[in-house]
Amino acid sequence: MNVLRRRLLSPFALTRPPPVASGMPLMENAGANHWTEAPLQISIKGILAQMLETLDEADRSRLISLGIGDPTAYSAFRTPHASEDAIEEALRSRKFNGYAPTVGLPQSRRAVAEHLSRNLPYKITPDDVFLTSGCTQAIDVTFMILSRPGANVLIPRPGFPMYELVASIRQVELRHYNLLPERGWEVDLESIKALADENTVALVIINPGNPCGNVYNYQHLKEIAETARDLKNLVVADEVYGHLVFRDTPFVPMGTFASIVPVLTLGSMSKRWLIPGWRLGWFVTTDPSGKFRSLEVMHRLKKYFDLLGGLPTFVQAAVPRIIKETDEAFFKKTVDILRESLDICFSGICDIPCLSCPQKPEGSMTMMAKLDLSMLEDISDDIDFCFKLAKEEAVIILPGIAVGLKDWLRITFAADPSSVAEALRRLKSFCQRHSKPDQQG
Amino acid sequence: MNVLRRRLLSPFALTRPPPVASGMPLMENAGANHWTEAPLQISIKGILAQMLETLDEADRSRLISLGIGDPTAYSAFRTPHASEDAIEEALRSRKFNGYAPTVGLPQSRRAVAEHLSRNLPYKITPDDVFLTSGCTQAIDVTFMILSRPGANVLIPRPGFPMYELVASIRQVELRHYNLLPERGWEVDLESIKALADENTVALVIINPGNPCGNVYNYQHLKEIAETARDLKNLVVADEVYGHLVFRDTPFVPMGTFASIVPVLTLGSMSKRWLIPGWRLGWFVTTDPSGKFRSLEVMHRLKKYFDLLGGLPTFVQAAVPRIIKETDEAFFKKTVDILRESLDICFSGICDIPCLSCPQKPEGSMTMMAKLDLSMLEDISDDIDFCFKLAKEEAVIILPGIAVGLKDWLRITFAADPSSVAEALRRLKSFCQRHSKPDQQG
Repeated sequence: MNVLRRRLLSPFALTRPPPVASGMPLMENAGANHWTEAPLQISIKGILAQMLETLDEADRSRLISLGIGDPTAYSAFRTPHASEDAIEEALRSRKFNGYAPTVGLPQSRRAVAEHLSRNLPYKITPDDVFLTSGCTQAIDVTFMILSRPGANVLIPRPGFPMYELVASIRQVELRHYNLLPERGWEVDLESIKALADENTVALVIINPGNPCGNVYNYQHLKEIAETARDLKNLVVADEVYGHLVFRDTPFVPMGTFASIVPVLTLGSMSKRWLIPGWRLGWFVTTDPSGKFRSLEVMHRLKKYFDLLGGLPTFVQAAVPRIIKETDEAFFKKTVDILRESLDICFSGICDIPCLSCPQKPEGSMTMMAKLDLSMLEDISDDIDFCFKLAKEEAVIILPGIAVGLKDWLRITFAADPSSVAEALRRLKSFCQRHSKPDQQG
Repeated sequence: MNVLRRRLLSPFALTRPPPVASGMPLMENAGANHWTEAPLQISIKGILAQMLETLDEADRSRLISLGIGDPTAYSAFRTPHASEDAIEEALRSRKFNGYAPTVGLPQSRRAVAEHLSRNLPYKITPDDVFLTSGCTQAIDVTFMILSRPGANVLIPRPGFPMYELVASIRQVELRHYNLLPERGWEVDLESIKALADENTVALVIINPGNPCGNVYNYQHLKEIAETARDLKNLVVADEVYGHLVFRDTPFVPMGTFASIVPVLTLGSMSKRWLIPGWRLGWFVTTDPSGKFRSLEVMHRLKKYFDLLGGLPTFVQAAVPRIIKETDEAFFKKTVDILRESLDICFSGICDIPCLSCPQKPEGSMTMMAKLDLSMLEDISDDIDFCFKLAKEEAVIILPGIAVGLKDWLRITFAADPSSVAEALRRLKSFCQRHSKPDQQG
């Protein structure tokens, strides 16, 4: 536990690797590459794996994980059979065993372009769409195309740790602007203006938001676009949770404002189609004025895709049919279940004295809850809370420090409602047990 | 044609991008990243696409491409039904719609480890195996883990252009050692010793060889291992064509000599299982003495895989069954057809006066033929030859300059025998038509 805790508490501490075992100069060389200077962040998956390791067999059998946005373990969250049929059709046709263009099959790029264009005031072309291995690789592509010596990128806090990992490996400086919990986790535009300088190349927003569950309205997104334009940045819009909204605010794609400022849209079929393991993601240039999308930039993008390896051709080939044949009823069912789980999760948190939630989420699959440590008698911080919760109650949630907010919790509600209800019961029981005597009752 | 030719003749000429259209500082920034300094190589796929563009509709319908190592267009080269069944089983089980560990599913890593261990004097463990998107991504991983300021890597000439692309983007210097045509395209060990210095970190070999069709024997591979050890380098063994050997020399994996020097083995199921589009590749550390495989290096590898996105989980999940259920008869059939196509190709080349082949290939899917331009009257070089051949005969082969040897040709014989025979007839007719009068007859 001490080693785990040390690494978690100080994810940026490992800036120097331990000495390499071998005395061969090569091996020293291999150890002394430019990664040496980069912090070795702990990923969400890494933290969750460490928590899992602390559980014994009996605990694992009753485990409820609200740690990661992958609902596929629950039978309530199943992609339509038509998606599987589309894969099988492409596979059995034997037309897609060979290489595809590294940027993606033309028909699949077109299908994604048409899909995304439905919600935009202009048409995205197939040439705007680059297929990636999930949104993860789209983040890597973004940093690759933006990287240059000294460049910095503005990202939200709390945020998604993959940005930290990619930026450290691609040697791009990150500057963290705040999201404002008291204003529905809106972007703090003043902090953006204060952080940006002549080396700032882009502003990242995540909407619908991970980890906060925010859904930004039209007016706020427009202000973000105008701020980025004034700062001569472009906007990177992480919309991996696009369309997963449950309440009053509709999902507005950032590309809506691409005539104000060029937008790079990152997305995937992972969440909306409930197939995170299929790795169908995209990097899309939404730039009708062509300010960013020069021939040279497009040429560099294509070159970069040549070395990425690409997705299996038959999986790409299924995309047009999957998009065409998925009906609104499926999307509605997913959103309805998520809303039900969220309602249970939110009211459960409101019912626990040491936890609070500044705003009920409106979208995505995650939310942030604030921990009041002063009400607990033997919990030192969010990491301690989560490790003890896992050990005692076989419930896994993510310490807030992993997403940039110490002494908060990130709770994923993408589980079936009965599991969420049981997890919240255990969470309440855990909090009661660890409350100071005067806080109980 | 002029533009095409200029780019082909001088693939390293584009070291400076043209000015970016927009006047926005961001856009200038985006243009001025470190790629600016990197040459923009033309890929094999890029050259072939340019040739294809010169063909009209009628020519395309009779096109025979011996340009790229993807035999899946021919019905003679079909993966067994069991491979498709394995994918379908994993897909329909609905157990593999969620995220997999980014380094690969444990059972799939184990299956690859056991598969590779069969031909080695020691056991590769599942922890040695990292699943990649084809061998392409394994090359990227290799350069990522080896890169550091000033590092250089030795690669063969002729070779595989993906190495040039990856090295330029990952900012690793390449130094080209020669393969010796008169000695069966063996590695010129003396040129390796002359090229290596204290910043050399690795020596790349491709065996069975692309583009030369070489298959190195045990003794030569051992000498390569000893040379690398003496130079304090490790060996990167590109074995994407592993086991595809047709004549007397058996395939010996470089990992056989991993007790002499650490070996990074790059491979895939693409060629042997005839599924290049399925993107099932691997990066494997074969290092029984643990000189390279330190905890720190393994930790860095895992971090890097976190940002790669990974292969679809259900595709990975099919690997154990595909490996288990593919019988030797399938492999033998593939090799028998390739041998037949090679025989036709080789004798066809021997029958054309202006072409010669220093050695009959023993493996892989490609071979090099030397062009005697002095016998031709209106062909200026290998690029001119290939473009005119494509235009006049609808036969596509690759100019040697693309793999580092000017005025040679790279011919892929991974096509069905009748197509290869027809392509060679057209090639002969083309050469006769362009021969100087005194060379004809």
